[in-house]
Amino acid sequence: MTNDATALTRGIAAPEEQWLARARRFHERLTKPTGSLGQLEYIGTRLCAIQRRVPPVMENPAVVVFASDHGVTAAEKVAPYPREVTGQMVANFVRGGAAINVLAHLVGASLNVVDVGVAHPVAVDSSGNGLRIRRIARGTNNIAQGPAMTRAHLHEAISVGSGLAEELAASGVSAVALGEMGIGNTTVASALTAALLRCPIAHITGRGTGADDAMLASKIAVIERALAVNQPSLDDPLDVLQKLGGYEIAGLCGVCLGAARNHMAIVADGFISTVAVTLAIRLHAGVGGYVFAGHVSPEPGHRLLLQELRLAPLLDLGMRLGEGTGATLALGLLRAAADIMQKMATFEHAGVDNRK
Amino acid sequence: MTNDATALTRGIAAPEEQWLARARRFHERLTKPTGSLGQLEYIGTRLCAIQRRVPPVMENPAVVVFASDHGVTAAEKVAPYPREVTGQMVANFVRGGAAINVLAHLVGASLNVVDVGVAHPVAVDSSGNGLRIRRIARGTNNIAQGPAMTRAHLHEAISVGSGLAEELAASGVSAVALGEMGIGNTTVASALTAALLRCPIAHITGRGTGADDAMLASKIAVIERALAVNQPSLDDPLDVLQKLGGYEIAGLCGVCLGAARNHMAIVADGFISTVAVTLAIRLHAGVGGYVFAGHVSPEPGHRLLLQELRLAPLLDLGMRLGEGTGATLALGLLRAAADIMQKMATFEHAGVDNRK
Repeated sequence: MTNDATALTRGIAAPEEQWLARARRFHERLTKPTGSLGQLEYIGTRLCAIQRRVPPVMENPAVVVFASDHGVTAAEKVAPYPREVTGQMVANFVRGGAAINVLAHLVGASLNVVDVGVAHPVAVDSSGNGLRIRRIARGTNNIAQGPAMTRAHLHEAISVGSGLAEELAASGVSAVALGEMGIGNTTVASALTAALLRCPIAHITGRGTGADDAMLASKIAVIERALAVNQPSLDDPLDVLQKLGGYEIAGLCGVCLGAARNHMAIVADGFISTVAVTLAIRLHAGVGGYVFAGHVSPEPGHRLLLQELRLAPLLDLGMRLGEGTGATLALGLLRAAADIMQKMATFEHAGVDNRK
Repeated sequence: MTNDATALTRGIAAPEEQWLARARRFHERLTKPTGSLGQLEYIGTRLCAIQRRVPPVMENPAVVVFASDHGVTAAEKVAPYPREVTGQMVANFVRGGAAINVLAHLVGASLNVVDVGVAHPVAVDSSGNGLRIRRIARGTNNIAQGPAMTRAHLHEAISVGSGLAEELAASGVSAVALGEMGIGNTTVASALTAALLRCPIAHITGRGTGADDAMLASKIAVIERALAVNQPSLDDPLDVLQKLGGYEIAGLCGVCLGAARNHMAIVADGFISTVAVTLAIRLHAGVGGYVFAGHVSPEPGHRLLLQELRLAPLLDLGMRLGEGTGATLALGLLRAAADIMQKMATFEHAGVDNRK
C-alpha cells in the first residue's frame, strides 16, 4: 500500500466475529424456527457485528447521492442523454421529483445530495434542501485522452465523501445507502472495473441507461483507449481511480472509508456505487464487513463485481436507474432485520413451546 | 366446472389489458429512463390494471393470517413442533410478539388474524385486537385416513375468507398479503400440490420448519397414503381441497376469490399460501391477474407452483417462516411501485431533457 492509502484508511477495522455468534444466540430465543427468516437473520447478525451491539438499531438511515460529470461524454458518444441532464437531475433531487426522493421518503431515510463536479449546474431556488455544493471541477477530463483528474483532486473528492460520512455518523446515522448521478458514468465504471478485475472490457460493458448497439461499440472502444492511454498501475487503487475515475465515484469511495471507520452499515446500489465499494475494499479489506449489496442490476459488470466481493444481492428487480434507488429499497430490509431483533418476543416470554 | 365453483367465482373478471398500456405511457413521462426501475415499473402497471386507475394507490394494505390445525399431526410425526404451538402462536400474534407483527407494523399494514380451526386455542386477554374467531372445527381430520373435512365445512372456510376480503375491500384496502399458521401445514400443502401438479411427491416435499431426514420420509409416506386413501378428483379443485386441505388454506383461497372480485391486489407468501392461490386460480383463471408472488421460499413445492403460475417472486431471501412474513415485506415493494407513479415529476414539469 502507498502512504496515501495508509493515511486514508487509518482507524478502519473489520467487524469482530464474536458479535456474529452472540447475535445468532439471540436469534435462537425469538418465536420462530431458527434460520426461518433467512437473509433477514443474516442481515441482523451482521448489523450486530457492525454496530458492536445486540440487538442492532437502524436509526436515521441516510441516502447519499454524489453527482458529477465526465469529460468523456463531451468528446465521445457513450450515453443516450446529453450531459446537461446531470445538473438538471440534481435540481430535480433538490425539488423532490426524482425516484430517489420518493423511495428515500418511503423508507424514512434522509437524502443528501453532493455536487462534486457537475458541468452544467442548474440554479435552484431552495437554500440547501439537502444539496451540498463541493464542486471540485466542472466534470473530469476525458479519460480517452489522459488522466481523469489530478492526484490532489482525487484526494479532495475522497475527502468530501469521508467528511460527509463522519458528519452523518455524528448525527446518529446507522446506515448509509450509496447513490450517484452522472451522465456517462457506466462508461467510467466499466473502465475502472476492467482495471480492477483485469477482465475483458466486452465482458463488463453494458448499455447503461439505454445505449444502442453503435453506442455500446463506442463505449467499448473508448474504454480500450482509456486503458491504453492511461496505463493505470493495476495494484494501486488510487492510481486506477485518479486516471479512470469520476469525482462521484471517488466521493462514494470516501463515504465507504468514513462509514467503516464509524461502524455504519454501507448499502451499495448498482454498478457505479459497487465500483466505489470495490475501490474502498482494495484500499482496506476491513471495509468489506460493513457492506451489503442492496441489489443487482442488469449491467454485466455489476454481477462480476459482486462475485469478486462475494456479496449476495438483497434484491434482484432488474433496476438500473442508479441514484441509490436499489440501495434505498434495501434499507427497508435492513430496518426489517433490526426491528425483528428489537421487537420480537422470546419463546419464554410468549409462552410458546420451542422444538420438542 | 361444478355448480359450486361457478357460484364461488361469480363476479370475478381478469384485469383489463388496456390499463397496462395506459400505465406504461404514464411511466414514460417520469424523470427516469423508461424501464430503468425494472420490476417496480411492472408492479406499478399491474396495480393500475387491477385498480382500473392510473396512477395506482396503495392504501391501507392488510395482512391476513389464517390459523388452523391438522389432524395428520395428531397421528403422525410430520413436524418438529407440537400442535399446541398453533394456538400459542395465535396468542403471540394477538399480543404483538411474532415476526409478522413486527413486519406488518414496519410496512404500515393492518394485521387480521383468523382462527378457522385451532385445536388448542389459548385464551387471550385482549378483546379482539385483530383476532377473529371463526373456528369451524378443532383442526381437520387426518388426511392419511380419509377426507380432511366435509363439503359443508369447506364452503364455510372459503366463505370466512371471501367475507373477510369483502370487509377489507369495503374499508378501502388496496392490497392483501396472505399469511398462515398451522403446525403440519407443509405436509398438507405438499399433498395438495402433488394432486394439483400431478407431480411426484418426493419432488415437492421439503423440510418445512425443520424436519430431519426421518421426519421427511414420514411426511412423504403420509402424503402417499393420503392420496391413495382419498383418491381426489384431480380436475376438481374443490374435491382436492376438501379431501387433502386445511381450513386455513381454504380460508386463504376464499380471500383470493373475494379480493379478485373486489379489485384488490393479492400478495402470496410462501408454499402454503401459494397453494391457496393456485386453488383459487383453478377455480377461476381470472384470479391470476390479481396475484403477486411476494417471495420464494426454500420449500421445493413452492418453486414448482410459481413456475406453474408463471409468477416471478419479488423477493428471494431464503425465508421459510410463513405467517405472511415474505408477502408483507413485498407489500413494501408494492407501496414503492405505487408511490413512484403517484409522486415522481415528469420530464416536462422538472425541466429535464428526455433522450436526444
